[in-house]
Amino acid sequence: MTTDPFDLDAFRRDGHQLIEWIADYLEGLESRPVREPVEPGDVRAKLPSAAPEHPEPFADTMADLDEIVVPGLAHWQHPGWFAYFPAMSSPAAILGELASAGLGVQGMLWSTSPAATEMESHVLDWLVDLTGVPQSWKTTGEGGGVLQMSASDSTHTALVIAREQARQRSSASAENMVAYASSQAHSSVEKGARVAGYGHVRLIPVDSEFAIDLGQLRSAVTDDIAAGLTPAFVCAAVGTTGTTAVDPVRDIGEIADRHDMWFHVDAAYAGAAMICPEFRHHQDGLESADSYTFNAHKWMATNFDCSIFWVADRRPLIETLSILPPYLRDAATETGAVIDYRDWHVPLGRRFRALKLWFVLRSFGAEGLRDMIRNSVDQAQNLAAWLAGDPRFEVIAPTPFGLVSFRHTDGDTATTNLAEAINSDGSFYITPSEIDGSPFIRVSIGSTWTRQHHVDQLRDLISRLA
Amino acid sequence: MTTDPFDLDAFRRDGHQLIEWIADYLEGLESRPVREPVEPGDVRAKLPSAAPEHPEPFADTMADLDEIVVPGLAHWQHPGWFAYFPAMSSPAAILGELASAGLGVQGMLWSTSPAATEMESHVLDWLVDLTGVPQSWKTTGEGGGVLQMSASDSTHTALVIAREQARQRSSASAENMVAYASSQAHSSVEKGARVAGYGHVRLIPVDSEFAIDLGQLRSAVTDDIAAGLTPAFVCAAVGTTGTTAVDPVRDIGEIADRHDMWFHVDAAYAGAAMICPEFRHHQDGLESADSYTFNAHKWMATNFDCSIFWVADRRPLIETLSILPPYLRDAATETGAVIDYRDWHVPLGRRFRALKLWFVLRSFGAEGLRDMIRNSVDQAQNLAAWLAGDPRFEVIAPTPFGLVSFRHTDGDTATTNLAEAINSDGSFYITPSEIDGSPFIRVSIGSTWTRQHHVDQLRDLISRLA
Repeated sequence: MTTDPFDLDAFRRDGHQLIEWIADYLEGLESRPVREPVEPGDVRAKLPSAAPEHPEPFADTMADLDEIVVPGLAHWQHPGWFAYFPAMSSPAAILGELASAGLGVQGMLWSTSPAATEMESHVLDWLVDLTGVPQSWKTTGEGGGVLQMSASDSTHTALVIAREQARQRSSASAENMVAYASSQAHSSVEKGARVAGYGHVRLIPVDSEFAIDLGQLRSAVTDDIAAGLTPAFVCAAVGTTGTTAVDPVRDIGEIADRHDMWFHVDAAYAGAAMICPEFRHHQDGLESADSYTFNAHKWMATNFDCSIFWVADRRPLIETLSILPPYLRDAATETGAVIDYRDWHVPLGRRFRALKLWFVLRSFGAEGLRDMIRNSVDQAQNLAAWLAGDPRFEVIAPTPFGLVSFRHTDGDTATTNLAEAINSDGSFYITPSEIDGSPFIRVSIGSTWTRQHHVDQLRDLISRLA
Repeated sequence: MTTDPFDLDAFRRDGHQLIEWIADYLEGLESRPVREPVEPGDVRAKLPSAAPEHPEPFADTMADLDEIVVPGLAHWQHPGWFAYFPAMSSPAAILGELASAGLGVQGMLWSTSPAATEMESHVLDWLVDLTGVPQSWKTTGEGGGVLQMSASDSTHTALVIAREQARQRSSASAENMVAYASSQAHSSVEKGARVAGYGHVRLIPVDSEFAIDLGQLRSAVTDDIAAGLTPAFVCAAVGTTGTTAVDPVRDIGEIADRHDMWFHVDAAYAGAAMICPEFRHHQDGLESADSYTFNAHKWMATNFDCSIFWVADRRPLIETLSILPPYLRDAATETGAVIDYRDWHVPLGRRFRALKLWFVLRSFGAEGLRDMIRNSVDQAQNLAAWLAGDPRFEVIAPTPFGLVSFRHTDGDTATTNLAEAINSDGSFYITPSEIDGSPFIRVSIGSTWTRQHHVDQLRDLISRLA
């Protein structure tokens, strides 16, 4: 048994073992609780207090995976995972991540691994066609796509570009700038605005379907201008995190245009659904958007991280983020014929994430991804219809995608108790949330291994516990 | 041959094939050019213009890895890679990344996978001991460590905290704040300051060894205060990117203290060396640092991304970045007994990166990592001594770590020509750079598979071409 850390024969042997272990883990998930019972400190208590001085056999690490790691997890890939939004994976995504790690290239510049940059541009251009967003967003057009770690990073980047655009236009200070989103927008808008130094974030009230109230947005902008502030950024959510509500993209775009605001569309979760044409009406009006984000790592079978950020015009993005020290000067860069993705986000270094998206697209084919999305939506709409037909439940929001939002008609306590009871069962994990001060239950359908019979079992459990 | 994208038997078979392919790739690297000959657009020209509609067999994807991807790479893991800084990997790191992708958990909150958070805290606490940074930086103390994507992210995060601290203290606007670093600091300081909205970045001149000129730093701070500006952030580089110059940490810390600036230490590359006690004098004075970053993905055998960010006090970090929407409320969070890493950086979601660091530490043992670092430094110092002893060459900077910086004594053109000739040979890749307007050659030693005989071959090539 070698303990040479560079031994590639050992890598072959250990690698095969780990592949089998992962397949076994995934096949065995259903027999485990969706969240392992674990108290704060349990995992650390099993780990030695100091790092090993000398190499340890891989077999020991594998044994600890079973004895320390797995019993300390919440199993996001469990078929009973209905919490948050899915963090889908797939065999192809895992292998794509493995291939990327094996190659170990770093694509900060085109020249530091041309295939990493070109495949990323190419695959994101494919996705422009697949999701029906504007053609000009292709890297072969004026815009372009880039992979970021998370939608929070994409939204933060958009806020920074917006701030710089507003500064150039009006010489306003960030403290006097305002970012707008609905009260149901993802917390990354508020966090990103804080990180980018905005003085003001307006979380605009929503209508009865939890979409932004356009009248209130218009008034807020008018009031802010009257108060001497500079509206700089507005975000439309296509599928809010709370209830997958859809803001009116076209109308918000008009308001953004009128006031020279940067218009960002956050479709972090629902963007994946746009691969099916029948969902695209939810984002009608995208031609006025300046930037857009969706996470292939949520509902498009690609493991975290793989967040897509598109801009309609790449010049303000690059102008905001480009810095050129001598050690990054490069002949290919100077021709202007290539993309250097280091100028498209905050980090400099980047791994070859496009590879896993490419593996996934080839493994599923566009039609396979459409089937997957449609299955989730059907399952969600059927569950919503069943809930709506039962007097014990009230579906509190539309179900345009894979999220069902409901409450118990007996009131807040009954809803909270029901959520706790579902989660205590151990087979399913849903997210207790609240809106307007009232609790509700989020059932997010679309996890990697969830099939119709798992949704049926959840439905039966809800019925029994209610 | 199945094309069911969820078939786990196919995953086993394809996974074994990919493990073998990676081992073959790594074993065969030396027989390839370190950078494949590729022109802009070559890779895209080989890719179909649209994504496939239907599933494609994995064998086709594997064939394209050989025919499209590999011929489009710069091979960062090639033993002749002496460019930039290393992006080390290792068999254990690749397997750790695979295990993380296989588990597919997302550790934004402690409760969304306790083992992901606890192992991260634990392994980073191990590294506090291993690298001899202040004990209070442990998560069991007042500070704590978190994994970020890149040192650029860590430095940007530090700049944001610094800005908020200065704002609370002085009610200054970001436009009136100043960030300081040397002219040799990494471009991420300037980029991060721009992203965070600082009005001013002062890149202070350096001394003859390319470390910051303390007198000029003091004057700049005094002048800025006199001009009504607010010094908010100062960065000490322990190992600059240009020449691995080392700024005087203790002295900069005193200046930071005197003026209430946030004190950030960027040891992105050299931090890994601190696992060997004999290098720690380079960062004497760390007890006054507020934050520190080093990249395990550079010189610590862990594939990108794995950047470590330590803070001496976690409260201002969390205060700056914490936002709590209803869908992220959580019983464990509310007890205050756990760390929720979502509040430690810009992204919300996060994958289980600690796993690969844990795999690496166990595969090498601390002693194995020390040997690896010492080998690189010995190889670099021997090369530097040889260059210094040859009248054709001038070593332009000290060689405290694994980077050798030299030029041709016949002048700038000879240096530039030499750099081009070395890179044209195809067996080695070095970085042509410049300092004070004069070109020089960076030879960065410490790539994953580089051994003494590769450095000897490079030395012979330099001698022949000069």
